[in-house]
This record gives sequence, structure tokens and C-alpha cells, in this order.
Amino acid sequence: MLSFESDYIQGAHPEILNKLVKTNLEPLTGYGFDKYCESAKAKIKAECGREDAEIFLLSGGTQTNQLVIDTMLAPYEGVICADSGHVFSHEAGAIEFTGHKVITLKNEYGKINAEQIKNYMSVFNADENHEHTVFPGMVYISHPTEYGTLYSLEELNALSNVCKDYGLKLYLDGARLGYGLMSCGTDVTLKDIADICDAFYIGGTKVGALCGEAVVFTHNNAPRHFFTQIKQHGALLAKGRLLGVQFDTLFTDGLYYRISKHAIDMADMMRHAFIEKGYEFFIETVTNQIFVTLTDDKYSKLKEKVAVGFWEKLSDSKTVVRFASSWATTKEDVDALINIL
Amino acid sequence: MLSFESDYIQGAHPEILNKLVKTNLEPLTGYGFDKYCESAKAKIKAECGREDAEIFLLSGGTQTNQLVIDTMLAPYEGVICADSGHVFSHEAGAIEFTGHKVITLKNEYGKINAEQIKNYMSVFNADENHEHTVFPGMVYISHPTEYGTLYSLEELNALSNVCKDYGLKLYLDGARLGYGLMSCGTDVTLKDIADICDAFYIGGTKVGALCGEAVVFTHNNAPRHFFTQIKQHGALLAKGRLLGVQFDTLFTDGLYYRISKHAIDMADMMRHAFIEKGYEFFIETVTNQIFVTLTDDKYSKLKEKVAVGFWEKLSDSKTVVRFASSWATTKEDVDALINIL
Amino acid sequence: MLSFESDYIQGAHPEILNKLVKTNLEPLTGYGFDKYCESAKAKIKAECGREDAEIFLLSGGTQTNQLVIDTMLAPYEGVICADSGHVFSHEAGAIEFTGHKVITLKNEYGKINAEQIKNYMSVFNADENHEHTVFPGMVYISHPTEYGTLYSLEELNALSNVCKDYGLKLYLDGARLGYGLMSCGTDVTLKDIADICDAFYIGGTKVGALCGEAVVFTHNNAPRHFFTQIKQHGALLAKGRLLGVQFDTLFTDGLYYRISKHAIDMADMMRHAFIEKGYEFFIETVTNQIFVTLTDDKYSKLKEKVAVGFWEKLSDSKTVVRFASSWATTKEDVDALINIL
Amino acid sequence: MLSFESDYIQGAHPEILNKLVKTNLEPLTGYGFDKYCESAKAKIKAECGREDAEIFLLSGGTQTNQLVIDTMLAPYEGVICADSGHVFSHEAGAIEFTGHKVITLKNEYGKINAEQIKNYMSVFNADENHEHTVFPGMVYISHPTEYGTLYSLEELNALSNVCKDYGLKLYLDGARLGYGLMSCGTDVTLKDIADICDAFYIGGTKVGALCGEAVVFTHNNAPRHFFTQIKQHGALLAKGRLLGVQFDTLFTDGLYYRISKHAIDMADMMRHAFIEKGYEFFIETVTNQIFVTLTDDKYSKLKEKVAVGFWEKLSDSKTVVRFASSWATTKEDVDALINIL
Repeated sequence: MLSFESDYIQGAHPEILNKLVKTNLEPLTGYGFDKYCESAKAKIKAECGREDAEIFLLSGGTQTNQLVIDTMLAPYEGVICADSGHVFSHEAGAIEFTGHKVITLKNEYGKINAEQIKNYMSVFNADENHEHTVFPGMVYISHPTEYGTLYSLEELNALSNVCKDYGLKLYLDGARLGYGLMSCGTDVTLKDIADICDAFYIGGTKVGALCGEAVVFTHNNAPRHFFTQIKQHGALLAKGRLLGVQFDTLFTDGLYYRISKHAIDMADMMRHAFIEKGYEFFIETVTNQIFVTLTDDKYSKLKEKVAVGFWEKLSDSKTVVRFASSWATTKEDVDALINIL
Repeated sequence: MLSFESDYIQGAHPEILNKLVKTNLEPLTGYGFDKYCESAKAKIKAECGREDAEIFLLSGGTQTNQLVIDTMLAPYEGVICADSGHVFSHEAGAIEFTGHKVITLKNEYGKINAEQIKNYMSVFNADENHEHTVFPGMVYISHPTEYGTLYSLEELNALSNVCKDYGLKLYLDGARLGYGLMSCGTDVTLKDIADICDAFYIGGTKVGALCGEAVVFTHNNAPRHFFTQIKQHGALLAKGRLLGVQFDTLFTDGLYYRISKHAIDMADMMRHAFIEKGYEFFIETVTNQIFVTLTDDKYSKLKEKVAVGFWEKLSDSKTVVRFASSWATTKEDVDALINIL
Repeated sequence: MLSFESDYIQGAHPEILNKLVKTNLEPLTGYGFDKYCESAKAKIKAECGREDAEIFLLSGGTQTNQLVIDTMLAPYEGVICADSGHVFSHEAGAIEFTGHKVITLKNEYGKINAEQIKNYMSVFNADENHEHTVFPGMVYISHPTEYGTLYSLEELNALSNVCKDYGLKLYLDGARLGYGLMSCGTDVTLKDIADICDAFYIGGTKVGALCGEAVVFTHNNAPRHFFTQIKQHGALLAKGRLLGVQFDTLFTDGLYYRISKHAIDMADMMRHAFIEKGYEFFIETVTNQIFVTLTDDKYSKLKEKVAVGFWEKLSDSKTVVRFASSWATTKEDVDALINIL
Repeated sequence: MLSFESDYIQGAHPEILNKLVKTNLEPLTGYGFDKYCESAKAKIKAECGREDAEIFLLSGGTQTNQLVIDTMLAPYEGVICADSGHVFSHEAGAIEFTGHKVITLKNEYGKINAEQIKNYMSVFNADENHEHTVFPGMVYISHPTEYGTLYSLEELNALSNVCKDYGLKLYLDGARLGYGLMSCGTDVTLKDIADICDAFYIGGTKVGALCGEAVVFTHNNAPRHFFTQIKQHGALLAKGRLLGVQFDTLFTDGLYYRISKHAIDMADMMRHAFIEKGYEFFIETVTNQIFVTLTDDKYSKLKEKVAVGFWEKLSDSKTVVRFASSWATTKEDVDALINIL
């Protein structure tokens, strides 16, 4: 059956698998100290354009968010995010599990803005009882957001400035970063992100890897003994090569960008078809996720032929569903979908 | 260079990689609900010989220990283990991170016995102030142990009985379980373990997989909403297929046992060579790990040609090192080692 | 200077202090096993009218909320409360510190209603991905609320019913419970609360005690080994008598109710004076807290002569302040205040 | 019945109660910002002889240990203590509850020494895998120890030096500090302790207060936002005056020392009587606790007339019990005990 359920329904991009096969018998030291991890980190560092960046490879997105937020915050601090933020809504309380409050601001199409942060911090500082409350210590944003939208460079700079004004760290969840970087609707580069954020991660799982996210602490600001804290959180892989080989491949010959560009192209094809056929968009996006509002009748029929992602029940008779493209989406898949629509 | 540093210096057994390649393009649902995960679980269940077993696939050993111990214990309970136990000594405090004390008993060659547990519980119960202390809730053992030793069936049954007497759960860390099962020095089968323990895990990372451990709750006793708790601990992989395909392959045509048997055969060859050449064993083992005491002089020379695992500094002039075999160890490797010894 | 800053600006009601003095030299066993703790618990149980109630004495409100919520919830559960709820806004993240998310619903004058809970749970259950989110396990309400308002018996019953429908525990924070019970604007008794809630606490600190809150688990449902969990949370007093003597006194000859009634009478006097003098109420209350909106000019002048509680900055030129009465508020104090207004 | 069960069987020293009564009606601001808290802190600071000391008042010993250890340690650090240490054995896992491992060294009569720490740290540093283990971050000692013994000034200085060498904080649990300071068997003063330790607490609960411990961070090293962290741990009292008045009184006219001296004198009387009557000491102490080994027969008879503290079951026929004196122990009590012995 045709599937646009998500961008992680297939395994890994063939180049990655090939490299895993090719390097399989090499004896390598464990826990991320092998040459492929080293090479991957060096390449990512170069792409970020920062000599002072420190990179760590982890397995999944929730794990990464939990670790980065927990280790960058002081114990009495919480993290500010959009009320649509993944860490608030879809990580089963993984942040609170480590003792930190998630403080929400109302999202607009998945985004929050500098003005909101400024207002929140002004009220916080003006509150004579604020020592009885959680201290905001970080702003979490996702780019692309959970709704597939993107921040502009101006918006990111504004967020960064307000964070600096109030002593907040800025952390960007890049689970689908590639699709953001290769969207035609963006003016933000990887180097910009490395300059603007205190930490961010480059998502692998949803951009062609079997698993893996590359955390970047941008200016020699990795939390102390981060390696030990990875282990303490249960997140250290013995065969670190699994992550090293994958990211080394993703950042060789621009594979990460090529994968992302392909997915964007496929999504654009789908987007045009939806417009032509008069479908209603739940939200307008410029990345690899398309959110469409369907009548339940239509949804039922569609489900017989195409797997899509359930997003939310909008009303008694309408449902929002998500179509996602990836490296593995073919033009034939998209044509087949268009025929069904 | 020749390496016997550990049983995780190579990637995955080729059959596993082949299967990953072969199934790579199939669109599968995420988070462990795909057919390979289902198939892997069904096969493991059959091997355990228990209809009421529940199986979950996780990424690594420390992660597994943390999750199982944290979710099976009540919040006021701690886990009893040998003072050589991995959860006590080499997991960076991952158990305490989730709020639980690790209570140690003196190990004998990596093992603890029923009598020790009985004594501990007798003292605990006789202590009029024991409500001011941590309640023991579980016994953790590793099999093979951190020293490569094994429990006999009689010993496991005795542990199980004392656990039942005192209301303790029995949990077995099987990071290297295959090597234990295939050792000629054992009378314990996988079915025995499934009958005797409340929970255990079948190690994949150190027995041929790229990553992955299969947790078995043996009698419909998986902690409530364990799936959500996996996510909450940051341990859920989006592409659950990575674990499903690996364990499905490991438990097809007895690959898990074949890998283990091969490693045992290679270790036996090495063991005989050490004996013949008059090496001093730090401890006698019957599994795939061999611990040898070397003079520092000898250690220095050896290190030039062979990578081995540092175990501990025994005295000013002696060091204990570990030689480990795996599926990837060849007869040629062992012969080459013997020539160097 | 005149002070209406809060209901905890003085020490303890004289009858309590007298009893502490009178019993001071009696040798008593520690940790809450003394006869005064026993007597206090028996009297509270009788007032609740439930043979199956279990009572524990703790030191403060945040401590009590943290302990009750943490020990009654499963690890993967969160607590639902009003976005004005004390546990959400003014406990420095004490709930998240123990690993649980606080899930907020929009308050109306400090209250939430059964319909809101029903809607939240319907959406939760309809969400196909809800296993990736925090499971709601409890509803927290405060009575009186943080705004001094009260639930009606009908509202409490409706909350209880919806909680039962969805398997949620109902917990009531009674930091100022006495003032709620003695307000002329209520139809809710202590027995009603004991019948309706799964757990609640009777506030002592803000109703005449030096410190202390009495937790009531209403139907043999105290969390297992709650005593040990009190200790584990750092909340156990060696001299349990301090709490026992205070609550024993508060529940002898209706002192708790007398204190509360007096404070209500004083608040009513103040309320009438505010009305007569044309002050603007921020919210209408029927308990011992009165919230008044002042121009900043007025606020500045008032502060010179009367200590009041800062509540919030309403706009650039207006501030909400709180006037609170207590057992120690005298008619003379109120008359003096009225002269100043 | 005569009772030597513990040093917390009576309420508060009368001077403390008097002061609570006398100040009861004064309106004071909450949460420890009142003048009595200020005064108490100033007096303690003066007694410590350090301008850079920062003092906080908390309710109980376990609470204090939990807060100080959790907030002074980095998240990946553990605390080293004697295997007889209160935080290891009798606090229901309160330290692990906050995520930190308690690392034990074998005690000698309740004490550990500099050499043991040095050895532990040498092994830790020499371990090539120590990044997989918990980093020691603090040494916890109790003075007097749980066995009533004391460190000499030389021993404390040696501990301090080794802590500095290895970057460990030194924290002293002074639950019974007064008895240590006033023992004739000591050469250690409060000023010494303030100079030597990074943090310590002056116990109130067991030295004449109803409740309360005064934490001293000795050199402007209080953890950031410690006030908020007190609240976050559920340990903040609304009526901070309860602690302020008590410690202000304890440190007025040397009451703390007088109480302690009296208890020591009473203990010395008892000690001599035990010697004269040929009783067997379990351990030799110089403070207010006396540990005696009794046959079970003797224990049974004694219990009919005197309440004592159960310490441990030594063998099938012998039990160790504790006799403790306090401010409330009278010469008549001791004479009565001697007649019974």
C-alpha cells in the first residue's frame, strides 16, 4: 500500500546502509571514540563553520531533548516553549521526568516570537513573588516546527537577542532540520543556526538515518562531563559506530542536503496537486509535511488506499491528516497518490 | 591490529545486516508496531516457552536496566545486587538517577547467593527502624556475570525461592546471555531463565547486533503503560524496525545460539593457549571473556600488537586485562594471538 | 504598623501555644507515634465521619502537595489543575521536581469544572497517539481557591463523578479549608469533602497553627509505606508532637472552626467597608481573602500605613492587592483600617 | 516511665517556648524574611567567626542533608560517606531520591579518614573507565557520628586537605553538634568547623528546639537560588519565624552551649555508673549517647522500667541499646536509672 504516513517509514538511505556494510568488520573502539564518530563530528563542525562547536551523537529525538534540556538547565530552571512544542505535548513527560517544568506560550502555526518571551520575562521579573516560581532558563524552538513551518532569519535573531537580554539559553530542535534548510521558503542556513543558538540538534532519524541525532553545543558550552551524563540517562550506545558511520555518510558529499531537497521536491509536487484538486489545507507549510483537512467520509475512503498520519480530530465530521515525504518517496508514489486524490 | 578488546568491536553479524538491507524499502509503521518487531517477539516468546511472556525491544544495556528497575520497583524500593554488579559500578549512577538505591552484597566471582539475600532480609525485618530505610524490592543478577562466571540451575532456583519468600522480584541482566547459554559449563537454558526470573533481557549489542536488547517480562507482569514509560525515559526509537529486524534475524534458524557457540569455541581455544603458555588467570571463566593477570612489562609489550580490555590495576606491577571473543573472532585471529603470547 | 498582608503573619493561636507549653516536658516517642498525634488523628477522623479515613500530619502546604501527588500518581501520570492552581504557579516546580507534569485548564475565578475535565479526557482518549503523552491521573483543586472562591456541593459532586468516569483521583488542597467551611457562602461540609475526595488536606499553617497540614486519605487508600515515603521526601519531623499537639488542640472544642469563623467575620466587616467607600473588587470572594484593585497612587499611600499582599500588576497604573484576615485580626485592627481607607 | 530513648523525647527548652509565646502576636513577614530569622543568622554568623558565611534555617535533618547534598553536587556526582552514615543507612533513600549515589567507605566507630578518601580517589582516577561511573563530588561526615564519636581537629584538617586535593566539597552533619562541641573529649570549636568545612549544619531538633537545623555555607558558596530550591524541595515554611525565634534564642546568652553541656554532664554520670556496675559498652563515646550491650534477658527486664533506644541485634542473645541524655534529663532521672541498673 502507498504510504505517506511519516518520514520514517523506510529504513536508511542506501548510501548509509552501504557504508555500514562496508565498515562492518573493522574493529573499532566503543562508546563513540571510533574514527567514524570523529570524522562525522569534524564534518558537522565544518558545516557549522565554528571551531568552537562541540558535537555529540545520540539515538533519538526525545532522548536528545531530555538530555540537552536537563543538562543545560540549572535544577530550579524550566524551559519555555510553544504550546505545540514536541517537548510539551508528545514526549510523555520526558522533560518533567528529569525535574524541569515546561512553560508554554501560545503558538502561532507552531512558532513563538521574541515579543512573547519579552512579555513573559517582564511579568516574571515584575512579580514580587517570583522566587516562589520556576526560573525560566531556556527557550526551546523547533525548526521546522511541529506544523512544518519555519522561522525566518530575522525571527531567529530576534529570539536570540531577547534570550541574551534575559539570560536564557536558546535551543533548537532540528528533528527535521534538513527539510527546513532545503525549503525554498527559508533564508536560514546551518551556519546561521550555529551562530544564533546555544545548542541545537541535526535530526538523522527523520532525514535518512536508521536512528541518530547530532547535538551541537555551539561555543565550547557542552555541559560538564556530558559523556557521563549521557550514560547516566541510559543513552550511551556501546557500538557508537552505528551513529558515527551514519552521520559521517550523511555529511559526505552533501547527502544530508540531497535527501532533504528530494523530499522537498516531492512535497511540492503533492502540494500543487492538493491545490489543483481543491483540498483544504489545515496550515500552509513549506517543508516536507503537508496538513490537509478531510471530511471523515473522504478520510475513510483514502485510508483504504493510502497510509497517512492522523493529526487531530477537528470537529465531529472533519479530521486533519498529515502527508509526509522523505528520501524514499518516489515520483511514482506521488503520481499514484495524485490519481487517488 | 589484532583486537580482543571486547565483544562489540565489530558491527553486526552479516545475516543481520543483510536483512536490514533487504527490508530497507518496505514502508513500516513506527515505534515498534511493525511486523518485524511482532515476529521477533513471537519467536523470542516461543524460545522462552511461555505464553504469558511479554517482550519489549530497547537499544542498550544501561537503558534497559534503568527502565526495568525503575518501572518494576515501587518508589520507596531499592535493588539488591553484587558489589561487582554493572548497575552498581559502571552505569554512571543511572539507577540512582531514577531515585532508587542500589544495595550491595559482597560478590564471589561476580555472584551472590540465596543465603546472603536471606541474611540481608532477616536483618532488615528484625530492624525496628526499618521503616526509616529503603525497602529492598528486587534482586539483580547478571548471567554471565561481569567476571564471566555463571549461575547453576540450582543456584538460580535457590535465589528465586528466597526472592519469593521475601516478596522480592528477580531480574537477570543478560547482556551476554548467549555466551552463558552456549557455554559447556552451564546447565541453565533460556526456558529455565524464563521460568525462574520475573524479568530478564536477552543481550543483542554484545551478541551480534548493532544495538538492541530484548526485555522479557515472564508472566504478564510488564509494568503498566510500559510503552509510555519507555518514551518518558527517552528510550523509544521512531524506527522500531531497527530493533525488530535485528532480533527477528537473531532468532531465526538459531543465529543467536550459533553466534554464541562460535564465540565460546574461540574463547576455549584461547583459554587452552593461555594455560599451555603458563599465563595466570585472574578468575576462571567458562564464557567468552577471559581475564588474565599480566606484569606491566608484559602488558606494555602485548599492547603494541593486540588491543585488549583494561580491567583493573591489581598492584604496582600487575594489571588484569580482558580478552573477549565474539561472532567476528576468526580462527586466524586466535592463531595470530597465540603466536604473540 | 497595621498588617493584613496574609493569614500567617502571627504565630499560633494562644490555645495551641498553651498546649505546647503544658505538654512540653512529657517524654514522648518520636516520628508521629505519640499520643497527641494519635488523638489528633482520631478527632479529625471523627470530624470527617469516616471510619476508613487515614490521616498523616505534615509541616507545610507545598510539601504536602508534593508528597500526596507524587505518591498517589503512577510515574507516567500527571495532575490536572486550574492554571491558577498553587501547584502550577507558586510551588517553584515542586511537582515537576518529582517527575510529574502539571496539566492546566483555564480557571474561572480560580475554579475548574466537570465539563472541562470531560472535554480534556475525551480529546485525550480520542488522540490515537496518546500513548506518547502524559496520562492524566488526578484532578487537583483548591478550596478555597487561590482567589478565595469556593466550589458548591453540586460542583464538587460533578467533579467527583467525572473523575470516577475517567479513573482520575480527586485531591483537594485545603490550605485555607477552615475559611471555606465557615463562609456563609458555602453549602459544603468537612464530611462532604471526606466523602467526595480521594484525598485532601486540612490546612493548619494558615488557620492558626505555627505549621502543619493534616492529610486525609479518605478510604483506606493511603499510598503504600507512606511513612517511609514521607521520610524519603525529607518531610518527617523527629518531634512529631509538634504537629500532633497543634492538631489535637485545633480539633478540640471546635477551635479550628472558631478561628475560621472569626476570620470570616473580620473579612466581612472589611468587605462592607470597601463597598461603602467605593473600592473596586478584583474578584468577589466569600472567604478571608479580599482582592482589591488600586491605582498605583492609592497603593503607594496605603502602603505607608498598612501592610498588604501584592497580588499582581494589572496594568501600567493599577495593582491588585490582597487583604487577609485571620484568628489574630481584631475588631480594632479593622476599625483602624477603615479609618485609613 | 523513665525515658532515655533519645534526645528528642521532650518538646523545646523552656527559654525557646517562652520566646515563641512572647513574640507570638507580632505581625511578621513570612518565609524567613522576619527579624528573628535575621537576628538568628547574624548571631550564628558571629559564632562562626566568618563574615562570608551564609545561613539558612530548615526543619529537619534528613531534609537538610537532602537539600544541601542535592544542591551542592553536580547532577553526575555522588557523595562519599561512612557506611554507618545517616544519609546512607537511615534516610529512606532521600539522597538517591534526588538522583545522587551514596558511595560508602568502611567506618571505624562511625568515622572515615583522609587516607581512605585518598585511596578511593586514586583508584577512581586510575580507572580508565571512570567516565562510566559516578564522579565523587563531596565527602559527608557526621560530628558527632552516629556512634557518638568525634573527629579530632587534626583529623578534620586532614579530611579537608584531601578534599581540596581532589576537588571534593566537605560537608558536616551536625545534628548533634552541640554535644560534640561541649564534650570534654574534643579539641574542635565551631569556628574550626566553619573554617574547615564547605557546609555544615547546626542541629536544633536534637539540641533543645521543637524542630530546626541551621545550615551554614561557609564562604559565600550557597547554591544559586537556594531559597527557590528550598521551596522546590517542599521544605519552605510559611511561618519562618518558628525557626527564626528558636535559633535566635538558642544563640542568645549561649543557650545552645548550656543545653549541650548539661546533657554531656548527665551522660558522664550515667557512663560512670555503667562502668561501676560492670556493663559492657558497645563502643566508647564522649558525647550524649551511650551504647551498651545487654543480654536479652537484661534488656527485657530493663524495658519494663526504662525506655531506651533499640540500636541493633548483636547476636542471638545480645542487643545493643542506646541511652541518650538531653537538656531535659535531670539528675533525679539519672539517679533513678542508676538505682535500676
